[in-house]
Amino acid sequence: MRGLYFRDKYAELVEHLVYDGVMKEKDCLFCRIGEKNEPSEIVWESDDFLAIKNKYPVAPVHVLVMPKDHVKKAEVGTSGSGMFWGKIMPVVFEVVSLLGLDKTGYKLVNNGAGYNHFEHEHIHILGGTKSEPDGAT
Amino acid sequence: MRGLYFRDKYAELVEHLVYDGVMKEKDCLFCRIGEKNEPSEIVWESDDFLAIKNKYPVAPVHVLVMPKDHVKKAEVGTSGSGMFWGKIMPVVFEVVSLLGLDKTGYKLVNNGAGYNHFEHEHIHILGGTKSEPDGAT
Repeated sequence: MRGLYFRDKYAELVEHLVYDGVMKEKDCLFCRIGEKNEPSEIVWESDDFLAIKNKYPVAPVHVLVMPKDHVKKAEVGTSGSGMFWGKIMPVVFEVVSLLGLDKTGYKLVNNGAGYNHFEHEHIHILGGTKSEPDGAT
Repeated sequence: MRGLYFRDKYAELVEHLVYDGVMKEKDCLFCRIGEKNEPSEIVWESDDFLAIKNKYPVAPVHVLVMPKDHVKKAEVGTSGSGMFWGKIMPVVFEVVSLLGLDKTGYKLVNNGAGYNHFEHEHIHILGGTKSEPDGAT
């Protein structure tokens, strides 16, 4: 059942509003996308995670990976958050492979503490260029 | 004992050359930095991980977090790699906090499959600017 895994595992990390049986934040765009109440171009999906095309791409390939339930950025930086990252990063690499970027190059970006536009945790996957897109680190 | 934790936990993920009692790759700059056989400006250190200033910064704050032992990029994308990310990401956020970027903004970058300069896995921490540095995702 959608949302159950996150609710059990990460409950202590997340301030949430429970409605409709799953953990969502009112007025969160990414929660609405996770619920399919907001249009998005889905490229990969599991019970707990979603990968969508970024509406405002900064590279030929620009995908966002996010948990369907509301995981706040501010709370994934705690020492107890290893479990969250241990779950989302294999998803990110699965999507990287699906997009073929494991062959041509991938750049993962995670912004926080003001650089981010949304508090619902997400990771950018960028690619589709010969050399590193969107700045060179 | 340095290196033991990684050797036990991630042995199956890593092609390695064992010498000097720890898992290192010959001719790997980051392995030499981890061994303190190469000069670097260390900002944080544990038995298994190291955070150093990037020698060629692209932002006012530009730090690299890496395992001391050789963990190859190509192998952390496998489904079994959640454990690695679950270990390194809490380290990254500890360094983000140490640098004060949890207050002023942080950008994490991880490049691979050709966009990266080194095969020894590492994560860039960028900050010290008012808005997102080095491109806007």
